[in-house]
Amino acid sequence: MRHYNLISADDHVQEPPDTWQKRVPAKFRDRAPKVVRTQNGDAWLIEGSAQPLGMEVQAGKKFEDYKAAGETYDSIRKGSYDPVERLKDMDIDGVDAQVLYSNTGTFRLLHIADVELQAACMRAYNDFLSEFCSTDLERLAGIGMVCADDIEQAKTEAARIAKLPGLRGIILPLYPRTDPLNSNIYDPLWTVAQDLELPVHVHVAVGDPRLSKPLGNDNPHIQGAYPAAMNDNFMGTYEALSKVIFGGMLERFPRLRFVLVESRIGWLPFFLERADNVYTRHRYWSKLQLKEPPSFYFHRQVSATFIEDRAGIEARHRIGVDNIMWSSDYPHTDTTWPNSREYIEKTFEGVNQEDRHKILVGNAARLYRL
Amino acid sequence: MRHYNLISADDHVQEPPDTWQKRVPAKFRDRAPKVVRTQNGDAWLIEGSAQPLGMEVQAGKKFEDYKAAGETYDSIRKGSYDPVERLKDMDIDGVDAQVLYSNTGTFRLLHIADVELQAACMRAYNDFLSEFCSTDLERLAGIGMVCADDIEQAKTEAARIAKLPGLRGIILPLYPRTDPLNSNIYDPLWTVAQDLELPVHVHVAVGDPRLSKPLGNDNPHIQGAYPAAMNDNFMGTYEALSKVIFGGMLERFPRLRFVLVESRIGWLPFFLERADNVYTRHRYWSKLQLKEPPSFYFHRQVSATFIEDRAGIEARHRIGVDNIMWSSDYPHTDTTWPNSREYIEKTFEGVNQEDRHKILVGNAARLYRL
Repeated sequence: MRHYNLISADDHVQEPPDTWQKRVPAKFRDRAPKVVRTQNGDAWLIEGSAQPLGMEVQAGKKFEDYKAAGETYDSIRKGSYDPVERLKDMDIDGVDAQVLYSNTGTFRLLHIADVELQAACMRAYNDFLSEFCSTDLERLAGIGMVCADDIEQAKTEAARIAKLPGLRGIILPLYPRTDPLNSNIYDPLWTVAQDLELPVHVHVAVGDPRLSKPLGNDNPHIQGAYPAAMNDNFMGTYEALSKVIFGGMLERFPRLRFVLVESRIGWLPFFLERADNVYTRHRYWSKLQLKEPPSFYFHRQVSATFIEDRAGIEARHRIGVDNIMWSSDYPHTDTTWPNSREYIEKTFEGVNQEDRHKILVGNAARLYRL
Repeated sequence: MRHYNLISADDHVQEPPDTWQKRVPAKFRDRAPKVVRTQNGDAWLIEGSAQPLGMEVQAGKKFEDYKAAGETYDSIRKGSYDPVERLKDMDIDGVDAQVLYSNTGTFRLLHIADVELQAACMRAYNDFLSEFCSTDLERLAGIGMVCADDIEQAKTEAARIAKLPGLRGIILPLYPRTDPLNSNIYDPLWTVAQDLELPVHVHVAVGDPRLSKPLGNDNPHIQGAYPAAMNDNFMGTYEALSKVIFGGMLERFPRLRFVLVESRIGWLPFFLERADNVYTRHRYWSKLQLKEPPSFYFHRQVSATFIEDRAGIEARHRIGVDNIMWSSDYPHTDTTWPNSREYIEKTFEGVNQEDRHKILVGNAARLYRL
């Protein structure tokens, strides 16, 4: 068995141009995502809207050279989309294993209005991701997508994901279109996920209307709207955590694991203290059903990932050292690649070896059975 | 001059039944707020909608007995609305001075659609609050309201507030109807506030659509929706802080003070680290204009209040001990009254006298010139 020194719990695959065209059934092919070359670089064409390559594929560039658009598959690191090149980029960075999320898929398939088409594209994505991970199953683990708009399809696909090589969990949007995450309409899906030991993930910005709105960039009276929105983007995970705890999902499914991805962790000490205080003061008049205070469920069942977060590491005794996992976020703009080890030294200054090992290796290895 | 041992930077006045009826001009009287007795206790009638007395006047009750509605002016503590009784309740709790916000006014006048009526009601409220504080100007300080929907009126009223005895600042909604707080349409108001040394305040839940929506309580598939929303309610202050920093308000008005009220503070270490990281990585491509990193403006110009927040106190070196102020939140459900000193001992365990004094007395005394 492989020995792990560093596991990154949140990275992304830029899907190759033929990801969907070669995998969806013929009847969906015309409407499935495809890459087009525009005057401003390559773009994913989804439901008539062209989404340029940019922010999600900036690994290796200086901050000064980051571009929001205008990249092509030739201008970005091959490790973004090629699994063999990915392993080489991981070696450069000292990362033994990565847990993989989508770029185009997770962020944009959700917005496909036709549920049949959306579900078909997700199946194709899951097949693709399993193949990508199969390049080295000890080093690449993937999180599959299920269609939150159709629970029956989601159950079936979750069962299929559990058998696909390399896939280790499912991801749902932060704000599903049908009902919020505290609705018990998802209980049949949670039953399957718990039985099959598939952790349930939500990822910053995925299915978050905060980042699909215009953000004020079009208002001539407003400056800095986009950086302000980036600064606020953990909020979707904060709200999701409130929902799954106060809504009773973690109580009803005590063996289910819930993972906040790219949420960061520095706000968790506040969340846990505040949530327990709400429980103490407000559970009577609000007729809250929970048997234990919110922090109990968090410590038992929740994990969260971070990239750079010294505030969270300093307060790790309040969060729980078993509940947090480092990540490199390759190849996004927030990535620490190729200098992850230097960033880690800074973040972990003064942290003992046992805590360090759990956060950098052990917690992810256990959760994803690596 | 009075010696202060404990100043509470966030408390509330339950306006007496005749607050608006006896102060607004005759032409507005029919439409101005009035108290009606209903089958379920007293209620404020505003624009045809009856808002029951409940959550905002629970001081002194056991958590088990908290009620969301059904109170009357006879069933609640007189200190809620009577300034002489208020001073006695402060004595019981060991609180030397309080900074006062509205209950009915701040939370509900904002929703009056007619801007003229809204502005008239705010003027009446400011006159009332000044009279309330005048009972003891060394112990009671009030924050006046201005109408965010009309900058000219807001400027005029801010200038009037600066002269009203006992008033020490202005409050605006978290999400003004006209334009968000990062819009430069407010610059003329900030100019006045800076020149007159009026700190600008935002308060949790005041003008926050999160708490005016149904919150899912009406969805039979959702439980715990209201406690989850309470748990999330600091978010409006988080977003406001992102806006005033990234939008450049604090840079353009370097002597303006901005205060987050009842925001709590445990999330601030995360905010500051994340915001500086967004600045470091994303200011080039997003063409952000700020000359200094976000934490610079925070430390120079922002204060935040908390009730119980051990996580924030433990991490106070990351926030800045000059930037935080304790409060008792009398007479709300989150109040520590009448046991504030015991709660404080718990929250401040192990904190040195200098830090303790700043957070419990000095910072508020300086900000509000007490």
